[in-house]
Amino acid sequence: MRLKLRNIFLVYFVVSSVGLMYALLQIGQPCDCSQHLRSGSNAHGRSRHSFVPKGPRDLSEDDQLPVIYVVTPTYARPHQLAELTRLSQTLLLVPSLHWILVEDSAERSKAVADLLAQSGLHYTHLNVQTPPVMKLKDSDPNWLKPRGVEQRNEALRWLQLNRSPKDSGVVYFADDDNTYSIRIFQEMRYTQKVSVWLVGLVGGLRYEGPLVEKGRVVGFHTAWKPHRPFPIDMAGFAVSLSLLLSHPGARFDPNAERGFLESSLLGQLVSVGELEPRADNCTKVWVWHTRTEKPKLKQEEVLEKQGRGSDLNVQV
Amino acid sequence: MRLKLRNIFLVYFVVSSVGLMYALLQIGQPCDCSQHLRSGSNAHGRSRHSFVPKGPRDLSEDDQLPVIYVVTPTYARPHQLAELTRLSQTLLLVPSLHWILVEDSAERSKAVADLLAQSGLHYTHLNVQTPPVMKLKDSDPNWLKPRGVEQRNEALRWLQLNRSPKDSGVVYFADDDNTYSIRIFQEMRYTQKVSVWLVGLVGGLRYEGPLVEKGRVVGFHTAWKPHRPFPIDMAGFAVSLSLLLSHPGARFDPNAERGFLESSLLGQLVSVGELEPRADNCTKVWVWHTRTEKPKLKQEEVLEKQGRGSDLNVQV
Repeated sequence: MRLKLRNIFLVYFVVSSVGLMYALLQIGQPCDCSQHLRSGSNAHGRSRHSFVPKGPRDLSEDDQLPVIYVVTPTYARPHQLAELTRLSQTLLLVPSLHWILVEDSAERSKAVADLLAQSGLHYTHLNVQTPPVMKLKDSDPNWLKPRGVEQRNEALRWLQLNRSPKDSGVVYFADDDNTYSIRIFQEMRYTQKVSVWLVGLVGGLRYEGPLVEKGRVVGFHTAWKPHRPFPIDMAGFAVSLSLLLSHPGARFDPNAERGFLESSLLGQLVSVGELEPRADNCTKVWVWHTRTEKPKLKQEEVLEKQGRGSDLNVQV
Repeated sequence: MRLKLRNIFLVYFVVSSVGLMYALLQIGQPCDCSQHLRSGSNAHGRSRHSFVPKGPRDLSEDDQLPVIYVVTPTYARPHQLAELTRLSQTLLLVPSLHWILVEDSAERSKAVADLLAQSGLHYTHLNVQTPPVMKLKDSDPNWLKPRGVEQRNEALRWLQLNRSPKDSGVVYFADDDNTYSIRIFQEMRYTQKVSVWLVGLVGGLRYEGPLVEKGRVVGFHTAWKPHRPFPIDMAGFAVSLSLLLSHPGARFDPNAERGFLESSLLGQLVSVGELEPRADNCTKVWVWHTRTEKPKLKQEEVLEKQGRGSDLNVQV
């Protein structure tokens, strides 16, 4: 009896001491947010090996907040990875967020797939190519044709197929060159139908967006095509997931007149009176419609002629 | 004997089980980066009430990493707060970082002070006005005069006065419109003298920066004014704090020929052979020289005439 007890004690003592030491060492580690990865299985969006999206991921176990689905259309150009890098780093600061990144391409590119895999975010990587007739030529002004339509609609299709009414969440259409304060994500999370706020530096104004009285939208501060049913920017609203799922056919209209893209979706979902004003009754600007200059790459030709052009293996 | 051993066992068992359970619960907590605020006292840079910078802050107690001092000159224009917001959110992901933000202004502005106070960062807020003769006019091309020189020099003066050789750290000159992957901060932290890496989309090229062989800089991939002693961009190097402090007079030269600003500082500090290549021997691009388009604000005049201009109380 004595021998047995002492042996049990010794074994337990050794095992528990090792366990305790390990655990205490873990607690001593600083919270290194630059490598912040949320716990999760190898669903698409968490694995370094997922190039092709796998099945849907249930985020509600991670946090118990409604999930913010950020839908971002993107296309290849020299500063694409810069844009996606800085946007992904902002998104990393927002809990319970799922990034749906949709490339305008025939195939999902390795560069974007790698960026997503290393981002630390929950994500879905999709692609759909804009029909040639709808694409802007390099020389076209950026406003000539609506952009990102097919890509946003592809994300809407994905949500219809992969989410159900029991999932709580909100959908936000966030272009890859805008600037987002993390505060705007707090504002949109508990949207019942469609929530709205001001967007800075858009529509030719310092800001554009709803006018609010007694907590309701009564009009819009806008100058450009003020007759639009919803004269607001894509970045100025979010739609609850349940509202979208209850309108399975809701899509952006690729044939909408210039500036009417937002209205083409919202008109199917809400009336102006139902809009939910956010960001201090639409008096704060927490998202800006910034645009990035096209980089000058003329010296590449100079170096190419000398056989010293930039190494294409260096990802930019 | 038997009784004693069993009691010892029981007591140890209870204590260690409680300890293990506590430790395991701690490990299970997610790393919540959206509210990640570093512990600290109410020194300038941590308090919501600090409009005027107080005394120097010793960060070494927070983390035991060398501090990265990020020096950012900034000036008022419509998209200033957008730029500072997205930059501050990137910096929030980097541990042991101190942001020195220097306004080109006669006085520190409330808007910037508020942004800093709410940023969650350790910071110092400075200001110095560029002499009128050195300032760009609105119609000048952006390359006509060197910009941010007085502001960066003011930060160097502040560091000379407020830091000493016992402080370990590195200084990085980060303009407010570039794009920074958080990975570039990991690369620069342990700089002995001056570390260097590629910068994307600058100098008319996809990327510009050092050429490295056997771990040493042997030349530069550059096309524009290749005879510059250090033909690299401001965002392409970092200087160890100790090296700067041991050269108390080291400053950028406001009269330097266009493109020679970086060289005017580095030439006082190191030779090319002493440069420390980073970012995978200068083969990865983790910082891009992005530039933001000037927003179009022409509709403001239209609304002003109708007495409906944007409310100036709305901060943009």
